[in-house]
Amino acid sequence: MKIGLLGHGVVGSGVSKIIDDGLTWEVRELEIKRILVKDESEITDERMTLNPADILEDPEIEIVAECMGGLEPAHSFLVEALKKGKHVVTSNKKMLATYCEELFDFARENGVTVHYEASCGGGIPWMASLDRTRRVDDIDSFRGIFNGTTNYILTRMTKEAGSFPEILKDAQKLGYAEQDPTDDIDGHDVRYKVALSVVKAFDSVINVNDIITFGIRNITLQDLEWCREQGMTCKLIGTGSYFGDHISACVIPMFLKNSDIFSNIPMNFNVIESTSKTLGAASFIGQGAGSLPTAHAVVQNLIDIWKDQDSEINPKYKKPIDNSTHTGVFYIRTAKPEVFAEIAESISGDTVLTKNVSLVEAVKKIQEASDESLFIAEVREA
Amino acid sequence: MKIGLLGHGVVGSGVSKIIDDGLTWEVRELEIKRILVKDESEITDERMTLNPADILEDPEIEIVAECMGGLEPAHSFLVEALKKGKHVVTSNKKMLATYCEELFDFARENGVTVHYEASCGGGIPWMASLDRTRRVDDIDSFRGIFNGTTNYILTRMTKEAGSFPEILKDAQKLGYAEQDPTDDIDGHDVRYKVALSVVKAFDSVINVNDIITFGIRNITLQDLEWCREQGMTCKLIGTGSYFGDHISACVIPMFLKNSDIFSNIPMNFNVIESTSKTLGAASFIGQGAGSLPTAHAVVQNLIDIWKDQDSEINPKYKKPIDNSTHTGVFYIRTAKPEVFAEIAESISGDTVLTKNVSLVEAVKKIQEASDESLFIAEVREA
Repeated sequence: MKIGLLGHGVVGSGVSKIIDDGLTWEVRELEIKRILVKDESEITDERMTLNPADILEDPEIEIVAECMGGLEPAHSFLVEALKKGKHVVTSNKKMLATYCEELFDFARENGVTVHYEASCGGGIPWMASLDRTRRVDDIDSFRGIFNGTTNYILTRMTKEAGSFPEILKDAQKLGYAEQDPTDDIDGHDVRYKVALSVVKAFDSVINVNDIITFGIRNITLQDLEWCREQGMTCKLIGTGSYFGDHISACVIPMFLKNSDIFSNIPMNFNVIESTSKTLGAASFIGQGAGSLPTAHAVVQNLIDIWKDQDSEINPKYKKPIDNSTHTGVFYIRTAKPEVFAEIAESISGDTVLTKNVSLVEAVKKIQEASDESLFIAEVREA
Repeated sequence: MKIGLLGHGVVGSGVSKIIDDGLTWEVRELEIKRILVKDESEITDERMTLNPADILEDPEIEIVAECMGGLEPAHSFLVEALKKGKHVVTSNKKMLATYCEELFDFARENGVTVHYEASCGGGIPWMASLDRTRRVDDIDSFRGIFNGTTNYILTRMTKEAGSFPEILKDAQKLGYAEQDPTDDIDGHDVRYKVALSVVKAFDSVINVNDIITFGIRNITLQDLEWCREQGMTCKLIGTGSYFGDHISACVIPMFLKNSDIFSNIPMNFNVIESTSKTLGAASFIGQGAGSLPTAHAVVQNLIDIWKDQDSEINPKYKKPIDNSTHTGVFYIRTAKPEVFAEIAESISGDTVLTKNVSLVEAVKKIQEASDESLFIAEVREA
């Protein structure tokens, strides 16, 4: 089966390595015909080209594997590929979370599919397990520590009582955090992964911007000390739950009981858990995905298409995200505690502990407070 | 697709419930035609029978799902089913680990397959993930906390400094351990799971009795205290590694560094990890499998057969188990420390710490010592 590869960076070069090595008979059924690279200096073999038309216009190429990253031109290239009746495999979570509805529609109209196992969980066979579980079962909910960078920072802050800026700087030095860490520490990276997990787990298209998202940028040792005193551990959690007519989905720091298995997953490890009726809770642990684990997931999807396992994998229907059913007790540290009086169970200095309220109510008050240094975490007693 | 179900106990009744409920379209393609039960009192619907021939001789039944447990008559029934050209799905780890070579041969001769996802990991999609990973990659090794009962006992002994007999008694009261706990505490349960994981991960048939097996029956607080002082945690580990011409596989208590993710998996949780070339380490966590999770795995295999995903899943070739390549440092507490002088790095009272030796050498000395109260653990510095 002939493949066109868009991008030859960290992931793309891993994909071409695995396919060229051809370790298994399944992999040897795949062939990379052309590779789109960014500039002349990247060209190291004759399959490489600077012209996307060499891939998008080639009728022999049945699958386009996109490992470029970024919104454009990745998005336009994939629209083009789908319109030409080519299957698409992508590792690009931001692009797919943003445009999934449009891309799935084009896929359906042209009788092809969009696969995206590598976009979420990389080294963790999370997406494939959701597919398999759903053959027998409905997924009720999922939750995960989806981001290794923030888990690393939280673990070290907790252990060493180091401040956020201090540990972040160290993480950047060690290569665990990007020079621009915004996507990680503000929760955007987790938001994209939650969006695509919702698509897969609940077979519904959603609007990624409706996912309420809080990060750990403002966390202080005071917050972690409060958490520790409750016998709890702080983790940045992405979660989604299915309610038939709507889906709740959010990204928020959570204070979890120390006995929770998630509290025991340290450093740059990820963990994702699905809960379904007959299987119960199943969890997957992996380490921040590197080149080959992410490439492995791309190649798995190429084999899926070659084996034609699922011809109707992309959901058609859009469901609203509504977090009013997501209720809980929230810890809020803010310069304006008085704004939260109405929903507060107790206020102590700059720290508010809310009554059991919906996340939507809490967000309304946060918008009202408009306090840029505010930190919120959900306190999970169970 | 018509199925004959052997056994209607904890797992069997879960299988019939999932199929009768028919939650997904895949499940609705399955139909249980007959169910073999043990005695009249069990008969609650017209599909139930006391006569195995009603299933084994019925040409309409294409798959036999065995959830009886025990060696016989489960084994003879499955031989009969395979000879009649019926696919087999089993949740019976002891029986399959014991007879896998024979059953796989009968399957191959009759153009059918033996599926056994439920036999190991139950609620954890471990076997299915091995299958998927192997489409792209070679599995180099695996290790796991395969047994919830022993993990529960070790966790509580470590936390509460309670003695083994004390905590075991409590675990029995709480239903975490059987009244006859031999299979769990002596490592037999893990041995069967390691055997079937070897079959799946390394595509080789082995002799289950060659798997060197030590349990935790003799563990004392003195052993755990020594372990704690090294900054380590004790877990009962099953492990297998592939070496081309042979496989090493054993079950042994290990002292693991506290930073090891396995040290952080408490109580009755299981965790299994595979290591492969491109995917690296991937871990799966689950809780002791109950009725529905195990039944879920059986139903997944029924769907696999219906979809005919893999027609040649059962390995043909037998590989020797040879633990001489398994080398390490071993902690041995014994009434006869002098027997271990030759392989000892240090002896202190009744405690021997060995040099870096092969597991086979250590076992030889243990046989020589013939000390029924001996406890051995491997000390894993990395």
